[in-house]
Amino acid sequence: MIYAVKGNIIFTKTLDKFNIFVNGYIVVEDRLVRGVYESLPEEFNKIDVIDYGNSLIIPGFSDLHTHAPQFANMGLGLDKELMPWLETYTFPEEAKFSDISYAKRVYSAFIRELWKFGTTRSVVFATIHKESTALLMDLFADAGLGAYVGKVNMNRNSPEFLTETLEDSIKDTKYLLEEYCNKYPLVKPIITPRFVPTCSFDLLKNLGELAKEYNIPVQSHLCENYSEISFVKELHPEFGNYANIYDSAGLFGDMPTVMAHCVLVDEDEIELMARKKVFVAHSPNSNSNLSSGIAPIRRLIKRGVPVGLATDVSAGHSLSITNVMVNAAQASNIKWIESNKVDKSLSTVELFYLATKGGGEFFGKVGSFEEGYEFDALVIDDSNLSIFKTLSIEERLQKFIYTGDDRNIKERYVSGRKVEEPKCY
Amino acid sequence: MIYAVKGNIIFTKTLDKFNIFVNGYIVVEDRLVRGVYESLPEEFNKIDVIDYGNSLIIPGFSDLHTHAPQFANMGLGLDKELMPWLETYTFPEEAKFSDISYAKRVYSAFIRELWKFGTTRSVVFATIHKESTALLMDLFADAGLGAYVGKVNMNRNSPEFLTETLEDSIKDTKYLLEEYCNKYPLVKPIITPRFVPTCSFDLLKNLGELAKEYNIPVQSHLCENYSEISFVKELHPEFGNYANIYDSAGLFGDMPTVMAHCVLVDEDEIELMARKKVFVAHSPNSNSNLSSGIAPIRRLIKRGVPVGLATDVSAGHSLSITNVMVNAAQASNIKWIESNKVDKSLSTVELFYLATKGGGEFFGKVGSFEEGYEFDALVIDDSNLSIFKTLSIEERLQKFIYTGDDRNIKERYVSGRKVEEPKCY
Repeated sequence: MIYAVKGNIIFTKTLDKFNIFVNGYIVVEDRLVRGVYESLPEEFNKIDVIDYGNSLIIPGFSDLHTHAPQFANMGLGLDKELMPWLETYTFPEEAKFSDISYAKRVYSAFIRELWKFGTTRSVVFATIHKESTALLMDLFADAGLGAYVGKVNMNRNSPEFLTETLEDSIKDTKYLLEEYCNKYPLVKPIITPRFVPTCSFDLLKNLGELAKEYNIPVQSHLCENYSEISFVKELHPEFGNYANIYDSAGLFGDMPTVMAHCVLVDEDEIELMARKKVFVAHSPNSNSNLSSGIAPIRRLIKRGVPVGLATDVSAGHSLSITNVMVNAAQASNIKWIESNKVDKSLSTVELFYLATKGGGEFFGKVGSFEEGYEFDALVIDDSNLSIFKTLSIEERLQKFIYTGDDRNIKERYVSGRKVEEPKCY
Repeated sequence: MIYAVKGNIIFTKTLDKFNIFVNGYIVVEDRLVRGVYESLPEEFNKIDVIDYGNSLIIPGFSDLHTHAPQFANMGLGLDKELMPWLETYTFPEEAKFSDISYAKRVYSAFIRELWKFGTTRSVVFATIHKESTALLMDLFADAGLGAYVGKVNMNRNSPEFLTETLEDSIKDTKYLLEEYCNKYPLVKPIITPRFVPTCSFDLLKNLGELAKEYNIPVQSHLCENYSEISFVKELHPEFGNYANIYDSAGLFGDMPTVMAHCVLVDEDEIELMARKKVFVAHSPNSNSNLSSGIAPIRRLIKRGVPVGLATDVSAGHSLSITNVMVNAAQASNIKWIESNKVDKSLSTVELFYLATKGGGEFFGKVGSFEEGYEFDALVIDDSNLSIFKTLSIEERLQKFIYTGDDRNIKERYVSGRKVEEPKCY
């Protein structure tokens, strides 16, 4: 299968520069980008060309951290800090996912919302429940979107109705790994200890072993909030810092790893993340909504830590990655002032890179139109945005990010395939 | 003319509390609220009742500071600080408003966007141009929205193509005051020195006199950014602070006054604002986008300074006041951390108050459903928001603010009259 799409193509190979092809062509062979061209090379003159006219064609967005079961809580209760917010809103909602029919309603709506906003790949927390986590993977596969989906593990400091025994936690996780590691090409399980406060060290170690045994990645939360960090110190005074606990359990970069937040990581933790290439899922909306603070993204990037963007619903209030880009720009501007102009603001091109290739790297060759990348793309029709003069492609992209919404996304492609609106139950 | 609307009514009388009437009634007589009731009193049993079913009915939003001619730049160039941003983006765009047909296109689209997002009242900067400023007032009046519209005054430190002589500046302003002070009930002129850097003290004094002579309000910018403030100090070392300059010119609360930003106001300025009831137009999007900082809104409120919200397009990237509410919440959360938990975060009810009655007070009795208030209202249909359980009216409002958009606003009323989509040229 080979075809081309035509339009105003804009993507990034590196943090500092847009690659732009005005009225250009992307040739897609099977699920991969064969090449990007200003005019179609002769060798392709017989293939189908889908002409998107004056539209923009950009890579799909990656969301490196979000909680599917919290979708129903999106936009609610955002005047609390992390720990009381978990107790009041999050845990009671997650308990409902023992009910598979409730799960089907919420999860299918969640996936449709990701589709709506052009998120072609995501790294997702489910709940502790085996059946509904399996369902979430099936729904992602049906929808044609890419995802890592984690059954959550938690065996301490949690409400009774969400506390597993270590044995059940491992058994259920193993069940899902057996069933789903090779079931779908675009949807895979991921090891998902909720975070240190709710996982005994034994559980963490068992999960580290599972990750290696099944050769799958890891996700968790790290250094989001002061009271969380104090609690972790209290629980584990024997470790130098929060990251060391995951690391000692084999959960910090031995397999591909993504850690949400990292607002308050210390120098040693940054050093470790850089060395072991642990991804940061940067979720500025959630960090602001829960009064956690502003993550030191410029510092992390400078030190070589891989970074992608994340919505973190429902501490984040939107599944839109463009919304996160704007919020990340704003947070970085405030950080620039706070740091006495040491931590330079994040520019639009940098944020676009983080939203596409930066996060996409967690999935392999995803998030760019370079040769050999999986063809994940969005077709953007910006004709309803308030444009009164000739804008460059870069300016049109910026206007879409800052002032557009799901209404501007006309088509979504994932791994070479056009993806239609997913079914909602 | 008397009628009632029925629905789930929610509004605020004070900063700390929602007033809620589930399936309640608002009786509107002429343009004013006659009363809000849980069930319709007998005396009204013959009047028309417009039943909005399960919808929410909330007061219209007030936008205390925005720039109509910058609408075309919305979402562009937001990686600069104030002064270079003005030079590169703003001034060249404003120059175009000498062309009345360009002005008609942009201004009508701007007004339709305000309508779209449920902004029933706004305080607007135009440009220095007399004709297009007059046109903007006519377009607002045609649309049926409320507005104070200011012809901008600037006679120094501006590009040549936007520099007026003092005489022309006053003459043109006077012309508009003569023509428009009594032309429309909902649309009025407002005295609008751009800010101290671009206005000689003589010009400011002349404008102060005009405000008194014609009994009209005043708007300008105050203490947005460090380099702006240094420049003002350089220009006027004889004044103790920035606010004193406006005050000495009769432009600081002698007539109703609103000042945009106030990010870096000092103690004396806050004291003066509180004493003279000078409104703050709080525009957190713009303050973050241009790396200005976070305004000390909690401190201003505590000291009795009146506060409303503002979009400040195009330094702000959206004309949506709900977007500003979310951003203001986030900024206040970060301020809470920065202030070592002294400046308490702004809650949803407080932000809703600022968006409605807080800003509405600049227009008189606007922004609430208390008896005698002008009936400005929005009908919110939240049925497409992801709701999977029974929510309280307050939670539904919160979900609309955080996750809804213009698609949820089904009707707009201004001063008792239903307002249809304005014409775009």
